[in-house]
Amino acid sequence: MQYHVNGELVPAEAATVNVADRGFQYGDAAFETLRAYGGTLFKWNAHLERLQTTCEKLGMPAVIPDDLHERVEETLDANDLEDGYVRVSITRGIQPGALTPKPDIDPTIVVIVKELPRAGVEGEPRWDGPAVVETVETRRNHPDAIPPGLKTHNYLNGVLARLELRNEDGTVAADDALLLDTAGYVAEGTTANVFFMENGVLHTPSLEGAILAGVTRGVVLDLAADLDIPVETGRYRPERLAEADELFLTNTTGEVWPVGELDGEQFAVGPVTEQLAKAYDELIEDFY
Amino acid sequence: MQYHVNGELVPAEAATVNVADRGFQYGDAAFETLRAYGGTLFKWNAHLERLQTTCEKLGMPAVIPDDLHERVEETLDANDLEDGYVRVSITRGIQPGALTPKPDIDPTIVVIVKELPRAGVEGEPRWDGPAVVETVETRRNHPDAIPPGLKTHNYLNGVLARLELRNEDGTVAADDALLLDTAGYVAEGTTANVFFMENGVLHTPSLEGAILAGVTRGVVLDLAADLDIPVETGRYRPERLAEADELFLTNTTGEVWPVGELDGEQFAVGPVTEQLAKAYDELIEDFY
Repeated sequence: MQYHVNGELVPAEAATVNVADRGFQYGDAAFETLRAYGGTLFKWNAHLERLQTTCEKLGMPAVIPDDLHERVEETLDANDLEDGYVRVSITRGIQPGALTPKPDIDPTIVVIVKELPRAGVEGEPRWDGPAVVETVETRRNHPDAIPPGLKTHNYLNGVLARLELRNEDGTVAADDALLLDTAGYVAEGTTANVFFMENGVLHTPSLEGAILAGVTRGVVLDLAADLDIPVETGRYRPERLAEADELFLTNTTGEVWPVGELDGEQFAVGPVTEQLAKAYDELIEDFY
Repeated sequence: MQYHVNGELVPAEAATVNVADRGFQYGDAAFETLRAYGGTLFKWNAHLERLQTTCEKLGMPAVIPDDLHERVEETLDANDLEDGYVRVSITRGIQPGALTPKPDIDPTIVVIVKELPRAGVEGEPRWDGPAVVETVETRRNHPDAIPPGLKTHNYLNGVLARLELRNEDGTVAADDALLLDTAGYVAEGTTANVFFMENGVLHTPSLEGAILAGVTRGVVLDLAADLDIPVETGRYRPERLAEADELFLTNTTGEVWPVGELDGEQFAVGPVTEQLAKAYDELIEDFY
């Protein structure tokens, strides 16, 4: 594999950052995870916009290089990938002094890619069956401590949640962890937004809560509007999910992923989930 | 400078971690900051114990190498340092798959050092006068999201707090930010614990709150006991600090640092602060 580091393609083994880089020392870095379909970066503008928002909130509004899209395409091309996972990271780089961020920034810019199978109507399944999800004790970051809209290298909240899924023999008990916010309302998975159907209405936690504005979440809400599926966003107690008619997760690589089990309760893959997954596949099929 | 990376001394410029390292990607790493005085690592056992606690809570209980103390000494020696700042980091390394941590760990172990002046009774001042401190809007991480006892590369909460201190012209308005917890009680500085004197009693937030158990905090509490200074720990509203008779910060490199200004209010350097700073200096003088 070849990765892109500070404007150069380098072999994955040689793709490094200095130990003094703030991205390493403090997780002081913004990132985005994207999906390439048939050589096209899906929802590039939405990801770029969110990356810009994260960078601004980190006090580094002018660090995204003009040729970022090219760097990503070069990395995909260098690895001969038409379909892949892409991770773009922008760190505050190395700065003099200690913790206080300085306005003068020489960012470190990294693009990593991984191969993924073709998606869309003619594509391969994105997962081995419906997701098994477990609610964990770890709560989503408090919005006053780490704003939930920031997508950064401070990902320990999700790591701690995933650690709770580990069985004693080292196997993993679930595909994702469901996190509540510190007030006990449903937030999201560690790397996915959550949706549920209740009385014919599609529900998902609103962006006012401790959640990330997932790009896939936005696409699914658009598809629901196109399909005339009634939608409500709000704050929900976990009991609402437990009693829901259908449940699914959304994220960039999993797309629309039905939940088959939540905390030991079984869920059938319902008609609205299937309808949305099909519409998503059709949307993606246009890239092939 | 030379740093220590995975058992080897390397020039600082060549001290790197791979971009796939979880320490970089997720801030999935434990660290400690230590002080060497006259060639001796101060409170090594206390730092090692806290590092072990962090590693255990990160689900990697057996990653600290037996020769960690040697690695730190080698790094100090290679740079000809008797007095210095030391940062030891242990990451979960590179693992297959995505976010879920795997039990099989090949940790990345990094030792960084910086020169510091001699301390103790005969030493140079650790700071340019009393600290200027500002209470910020950013709240300390919620204990249910990121346990405060963990010292990790997820340091964005402190970075965001420090960003609030930045003036429009890029200068910095204060030496440290004071963070409250999400319930509005005093927590700590971004890299320091906070103490205040009130009616002849030394107060500091208790370890039950959203704070780190600072090693220097522990040393100062021991010194206060030796000096028969009455101590109380608890949860305090910020008004208590604003109305305190004396105020100071503690951390590994600043030791006992009087606060001269909090949110625009002036504080004189009081007798108990001076007494504790002197006792700290005497304790350190033994290392020369």
